[in-house]
Amino acid sequence: MSIRVGIVGISGYGGGEALRLCAAHPEFRVVYAAGESSAGQTVAQRYPGLPSSLGDLVVQKFQPSELPELDVLFASLPTGESKSALAQVPARTKIVDIGGDHRYVSGWVYGLADVWPEQIRGQTRIANPGCYPAASLTALAPLLARGLISPEGIIIDAKSGVSGAGRGGGDSKFAYAECNEDVSPYGILQHTHLPEMQKTIETISGSSQGLVFTAHLIPMTRGILATIYCRGSVDTATCLATAREFYAGRSFVKVLDRPLHTKWAYGSNNVFISYACDPARKLVMAFGAIDNLGKGAAGQALQNANLMHDLPEGTGLEGVSLWP
Amino acid sequence: MSIRVGIVGISGYGGGEALRLCAAHPEFRVVYAAGESSAGQTVAQRYPGLPSSLGDLVVQKFQPSELPELDVLFASLPTGESKSALAQVPARTKIVDIGGDHRYVSGWVYGLADVWPEQIRGQTRIANPGCYPAASLTALAPLLARGLISPEGIIIDAKSGVSGAGRGGGDSKFAYAECNEDVSPYGILQHTHLPEMQKTIETISGSSQGLVFTAHLIPMTRGILATIYCRGSVDTATCLATAREFYAGRSFVKVLDRPLHTKWAYGSNNVFISYACDPARKLVMAFGAIDNLGKGAAGQALQNANLMHDLPEGTGLEGVSLWP
Amino acid sequence: MSIRVGIVGISGYGGGEALRLCAAHPEFRVVYAAGESSAGQTVAQRYPGLPSSLGDLVVQKFQPSELPELDVLFASLPTGESKSALAQVPARTKIVDIGGDHRYVSGWVYGLADVWPEQIRGQTRIANPGCYPAASLTALAPLLARGLISPEGIIIDAKSGVSGAGRGGGDSKFAYAECNEDVSPYGILQHTHLPEMQKTIETISGSSQGLVFTAHLIPMTRGILATIYCRGSVDTATCLATAREFYAGRSFVKVLDRPLHTKWAYGSNNVFISYACDPARKLVMAFGAIDNLGKGAAGQALQNANLMHDLPEGTGLEGVSLWP
Amino acid sequence: MSIRVGIVGISGYGGGEALRLCAAHPEFRVVYAAGESSAGQTVAQRYPGLPSSLGDLVVQKFQPSELPELDVLFASLPTGESKSALAQVPARTKIVDIGGDHRYVSGWVYGLADVWPEQIRGQTRIANPGCYPAASLTALAPLLARGLISPEGIIIDAKSGVSGAGRGGGDSKFAYAECNEDVSPYGILQHTHLPEMQKTIETISGSSQGLVFTAHLIPMTRGILATIYCRGSVDTATCLATAREFYAGRSFVKVLDRPLHTKWAYGSNNVFISYACDPARKLVMAFGAIDNLGKGAAGQALQNANLMHDLPEGTGLEGVSLWP
Repeated sequence: MSIRVGIVGISGYGGGEALRLCAAHPEFRVVYAAGESSAGQTVAQRYPGLPSSLGDLVVQKFQPSELPELDVLFASLPTGESKSALAQVPARTKIVDIGGDHRYVSGWVYGLADVWPEQIRGQTRIANPGCYPAASLTALAPLLARGLISPEGIIIDAKSGVSGAGRGGGDSKFAYAECNEDVSPYGILQHTHLPEMQKTIETISGSSQGLVFTAHLIPMTRGILATIYCRGSVDTATCLATAREFYAGRSFVKVLDRPLHTKWAYGSNNVFISYACDPARKLVMAFGAIDNLGKGAAGQALQNANLMHDLPEGTGLEGVSLWP
Repeated sequence: MSIRVGIVGISGYGGGEALRLCAAHPEFRVVYAAGESSAGQTVAQRYPGLPSSLGDLVVQKFQPSELPELDVLFASLPTGESKSALAQVPARTKIVDIGGDHRYVSGWVYGLADVWPEQIRGQTRIANPGCYPAASLTALAPLLARGLISPEGIIIDAKSGVSGAGRGGGDSKFAYAECNEDVSPYGILQHTHLPEMQKTIETISGSSQGLVFTAHLIPMTRGILATIYCRGSVDTATCLATAREFYAGRSFVKVLDRPLHTKWAYGSNNVFISYACDPARKLVMAFGAIDNLGKGAAGQALQNANLMHDLPEGTGLEGVSLWP
Repeated sequence: MSIRVGIVGISGYGGGEALRLCAAHPEFRVVYAAGESSAGQTVAQRYPGLPSSLGDLVVQKFQPSELPELDVLFASLPTGESKSALAQVPARTKIVDIGGDHRYVSGWVYGLADVWPEQIRGQTRIANPGCYPAASLTALAPLLARGLISPEGIIIDAKSGVSGAGRGGGDSKFAYAECNEDVSPYGILQHTHLPEMQKTIETISGSSQGLVFTAHLIPMTRGILATIYCRGSVDTATCLATAREFYAGRSFVKVLDRPLHTKWAYGSNNVFISYACDPARKLVMAFGAIDNLGKGAAGQALQNANLMHDLPEGTGLEGVSLWP
Repeated sequence: MSIRVGIVGISGYGGGEALRLCAAHPEFRVVYAAGESSAGQTVAQRYPGLPSSLGDLVVQKFQPSELPELDVLFASLPTGESKSALAQVPARTKIVDIGGDHRYVSGWVYGLADVWPEQIRGQTRIANPGCYPAASLTALAPLLARGLISPEGIIIDAKSGVSGAGRGGGDSKFAYAECNEDVSPYGILQHTHLPEMQKTIETISGSSQGLVFTAHLIPMTRGILATIYCRGSVDTATCLATAREFYAGRSFVKVLDRPLHTKWAYGSNNVFISYACDPARKLVMAFGAIDNLGKGAAGQALQNANLMHDLPEGTGLEGVSLWP
């Protein structure tokens, strides 16, 4: 427990999950926690299940200029608030920005940890991928990297649990009574996660055109399933073999030859991927399933922090998913 | 459709359910709808499933002094806002106050419609019971009225869906991600519905002492189950027979000799009641199950309005509950 | 109440919903109910919310050769059981087969009621569409009929509540604990509803090729959303205008210019449709939202029965959807 | 990882949770897994999120006479199947019976681990408490042990998630569509967990009379809340102080002075307890909240196994609960 950790945004779902995972990490010691709505409370007042060693920490109001000495800071701030705030963090403190403000921004590495672990190792500024990209890109990367599908005209139809919308605001559209027994698309043709997916596809394939992405809110707390429609002449077995080879040795990626369930990932940092092809009509379907707060947020953030500190990427993240 | 109806609080869950039920009522014509968050919209923008005849109505900002001519007004306002506002409504306009401000207030009749239909008939000011009392008192009334249980030391342990908390505020404690997979008690020993239950028990029995009421929020949208523990030497068969005789001819009360399910009431104005006794230890258990927006709010409000207009109490409320 | 109605499969979700809707129908009188698991009970033992007039009916074991005289029979039987059984029903008894065995079978009309009402009027054998086709084809029909999209390469990504899987079997994959907090695709590239969708597209457009359909199970009881990706150069406004003109006068079809919610259809026979286009890349997105037990099963079955009896198609189906 | 562990009933929810927790235990190595429905598969086929080290184990059909050498066996068998089967397990293999057959049976110690840790230490046959007793007795024990409440006339009203009903059978009453949006009491006045609660109260207090226990099924996967009504003249602060002193040093018991949420325990072995008193009418309310598969089954089983092996009771169970 020699690595001094700070977490900003502790009241929210992403920050809370980072706290949960840090509590189980053998090398991380949380010495600083900041949050808006719970400032002044102890961490255990907000999360009563925490062990008292961690729970007695008092939540601070975030003042970037007055941080204690930290080895790494996990930042989970509302969109638009990260840039100026994190610019004030001293260079010696590594940062993983769980929020969206630094993705594909100069000076920051896009932390798609299962695809580009070596680029992350030793870095000091990591932009954690969005939850939808985390589910989608891991499934697409092997096929794109090996040229088995066209980078053009990819259609991603994703279904997310409600915690992905974050805690802030308390908008009645995220109220229990209104989300329950409902499914709805949102951000149609203009979702904020579209650019980072386009850029990642382009980075891997050399081009990206006509990417379509549709997000849906479904009545569950955690989990994202991405159902992806692509064009390519490959068959299912080749896709599976390619992905297994691409991810050889990467313990969080599970390549399976059957229909996925997001519940398999519940509470874990795993990502499940699968494929189904109809070569006769050049159809390739890819599937990715994650916990949006695990691989989709805090799990990947810790995996990135492990790589930044040159620890084994799975340190502290071995927890098995809950079932049922 | 000769009765001119107004609804205040159309954006909320209780007001919305009143609108849904009025749309199916053969004598009621909604000519006025008021609401905060949807003022200026048509009703159909808020509730896209409405037929266009009703949906084209424009939602007003509620100005009690500028009401159109109405035969009856359903008011579903936040606690504390009813008293001064409804005092300005002309005497010729009947009112059913779905909110809590006029329960056991002078000049207003407590509208426990299945128990006291005759007292409601022809009245002009009705205070609709709270959702928990609606579930609990209907189960208790026959036993209290016939002296089969003691009015002292009754314990009501009730479980409610989240819509009972209303729509206002958007507090994150009613957010999907926080209510889902959670059960929690609230209002322990000091719930706002306690006084009206005490007064009703006293009205029926002559006394009420030591009533205990515990509300719980459970992860569903609609439904309340009240599990009630009383003292009495009666057996189960006598309780059932007594309730059946007490409610003879009352079509909304279903007395059953098996464990209840709130789902049976989903979307309806029915109330299900059942009993289980252990005479050896003088234990009487009573159960009541309703839809909190049906019998617990708008369903009972329309039943009251029917009685006020001397219509058959079930007019427009015959809809069968959804299952599953 | 002059039309004598029978319902087969009363224990299941589709048959139960048919019963609920018939109870509210001014011309239908249910005189016969058959079911496997509830045979011998009264209908009210299975559905305790029913009025006693209907509830006292005793559920029969289905013997097609021993039916009473019926004007119309709603059949909701397990796949494979309809053909031989319904062949024994006398010709004078009209049939709506809610199950899948008679879709695009000779002698039976495919009952896509909002699209082809005139072909259904006066018929005696109607095959009710599947739940996924009901949601998808209503959204596609106007664009296909007017040639605004290509009938080739359509991708339908649909999300359904669990009641769509039916009640039979009690497979643990439909158990609460396993469906809750989970989303999963199924029937990938080989769903049983694929043929009827291909045939309908072909009927409207003259051809259909390469239709892709993916079903997903999501944790809710009722509702289907179909998100559909097509190719065409049309813009959103033209799609909306086309659909409004195509469905002019059809009260169950609601064409909206905003993201859909399945909850809007909860408990009703409505179908909501919407569109979003990006003409620059020839992308047309169509959306359809229904209650899978309403428009997706029993609601459409009653609409068909109304047309078969030359009643106004909406008779008895005016009920407004529940919200929330 | 020197302790050789076997798990019987791996396909079920309790057995599966034992597997999940053993995977995180530093001293336990699962070398044997048996189950009915998944026999012949690898463990990872049933639980795809497992690390391959554990996942490659092949599930056996349970043959008590052919067990490999094991240090401890976790048995999660259907009611009635444990007694004869576990009698064949060699004496050198310790057993924790998660099922109900050995509770208060001669030769077996009742494993209420937070209350009686010292009686469990070094034992070889432990009967794990039922899920409802686990939630209820931990809240009651301090007050009973110190004589602050009467052991007579205690009323326990408990609410459980559906996974508590187990996986077996696939009864449609546990189907998603039927449990969702429903709450129902069951086992009224005759629940199978009643005897072990009576005996435990008697063990602690010297007597137990008139215990009332009502179980309710609510629409969530995991979690139990017990709301308990007792008689005593004590005040809230004294109850809290007494419980804190009683459980001093027991890390899994969290005594809190605010309304409980079962979600706080989600996925953990924690038990939360709270109290609310009205001394004027001698009312004492006690609350207990757990995860029914954690403290209510597998979590407590591992805690017991730790004590049996003289390990620190929390070994491998430090995992923080998920939120949200």
